[in-house]
Amino acid sequence: MIDCGEGAQRSMMLQGLSFTRLRHIFISHLHGDHCLGLPGLLSTLSLHQMGGTLTVHTFADGAEIFQKMIDFFCRERSFDLQFNILDPVCRQVALDTKSLSVETFPLRHRVPTVGFLIKEKPKPRHIISDAVKFFNVPVSRMKEIKEGADFVTPDGQVIVNSRLTREADPSASYAYCSDTLFDRTLSEIVKGVDLLYHEATYADDSQAKARERFHSTASQAARIARDAGVGKLLLGHYSKAYKDENRHLEEARKIFPETVLANEGMKIDI
Amino acid sequence: MIDCGEGAQRSMMLQGLSFTRLRHIFISHLHGDHCLGLPGLLSTLSLHQMGGTLTVHTFADGAEIFQKMIDFFCRERSFDLQFNILDPVCRQVALDTKSLSVETFPLRHRVPTVGFLIKEKPKPRHIISDAVKFFNVPVSRMKEIKEGADFVTPDGQVIVNSRLTREADPSASYAYCSDTLFDRTLSEIVKGVDLLYHEATYADDSQAKARERFHSTASQAARIARDAGVGKLLLGHYSKAYKDENRHLEEARKIFPETVLANEGMKIDI
Repeated sequence: MIDCGEGAQRSMMLQGLSFTRLRHIFISHLHGDHCLGLPGLLSTLSLHQMGGTLTVHTFADGAEIFQKMIDFFCRERSFDLQFNILDPVCRQVALDTKSLSVETFPLRHRVPTVGFLIKEKPKPRHIISDAVKFFNVPVSRMKEIKEGADFVTPDGQVIVNSRLTREADPSASYAYCSDTLFDRTLSEIVKGVDLLYHEATYADDSQAKARERFHSTASQAARIARDAGVGKLLLGHYSKAYKDENRHLEEARKIFPETVLANEGMKIDI
Repeated sequence: MIDCGEGAQRSMMLQGLSFTRLRHIFISHLHGDHCLGLPGLLSTLSLHQMGGTLTVHTFADGAEIFQKMIDFFCRERSFDLQFNILDPVCRQVALDTKSLSVETFPLRHRVPTVGFLIKEKPKPRHIISDAVKFFNVPVSRMKEIKEGADFVTPDGQVIVNSRLTREADPSASYAYCSDTLFDRTLSEIVKGVDLLYHEATYADDSQAKARERFHSTASQAARIARDAGVGKLLLGHYSKAYKDENRHLEEARKIFPETVLANEGMKIDI
């Protein structure tokens, strides 16, 4: 889970998402709308027979305040709660597993803030079963062949990998740019991701306000997406001053056509 | 506001209730589902030009933990936030204004818990304008006549109050019995209130569980309502183990017919 505003647990319920599968929560910054759902969510998780470890990735002061809340409200919890302390000023790997990595990068907001870059690891190539049968590839070699190795037959013949495997499934990537001032250097960091979430608090009519409040406009988000050559741009975090987000969408699409508006309960297949 | 679970601010928005009119929040006990909406609500209130004082009535440990949260998340608030420290073991007047009083009374739950008894003060009697004109009652005497005093004319004639005024509007009363074990002594405290909210976590099938978890069944709530002779009983706080609350309602109505089920967004005219 990335960020946990008030009501996150209710949204999970409405979406039918399993509480007990949740293992990592990444908090981009310590403004209430990005983390005040955490005490309630953890309190509810305490009532589930969850087991294992739940890690909250946040800054040192966040860990301190949430630890106090949790010690008070979630005394009887059935899981181990850990904090992974993030440094807001540098890029760092917050999580690295066999299948994916989550990297942080600094954003420019009124308080320390980071974005998250999530990348699936390269996936194994698909074995062509007729070919491996034909060349009598032993099971013990399969792993390295899936990783791209050639095969040498007992009589010294080299079978190039492309005859034994087909292309791996693509690895998906997602970048999340939480609250931030327009920062064109972000496009280097999020280069080529399949999906970019970028805040778009304001439309072009409030550029000055965006700058003053350390937020972005939809057009600015679209410029990042265009310069980074991402697959799709997802806008969100709209100011309540707007009745709807048609303006945000229109202005962004002029710059980057593959833009969509995030709204509560939306599901996107990356 | 009595109790402030997560999402209270969202419910207020959906109901069209004004944030800036909120001046007192009473917390019955420090379980997450009764107070974890407070940080988010106060954080949102900080964004409004509210002014004045907001008082949170809670126990000492609640005040301490919420003060920490608020110092962290609501730095730029536009109102003065005060805590009125409640004692969970005795009855006390938490608030006393010209128009109403709010009194606490101890409940029996797994952690210190109080209920709230809200009573409107007696209202002034209605002046019969033809009568006060006829007897030349001076404006300076009106206040005491509205409060029930007789009028003595300059020549010594006593005009009894009932000739000058009509019956005052009735004063409404409401009692809120938050999470509690069945406690028959409550009926004395909530005697004759117009509306009694009483938790009804379980139905009759889980009486043992109710006792074990320091909660009540719907029938037990109805017994309190019947013994107290209240106007209407409002049930709530249903266990998620039930698909709906038909059973609660049916079992309670057998004992106290004037029972209704509380559900999100419900409005009741007392």
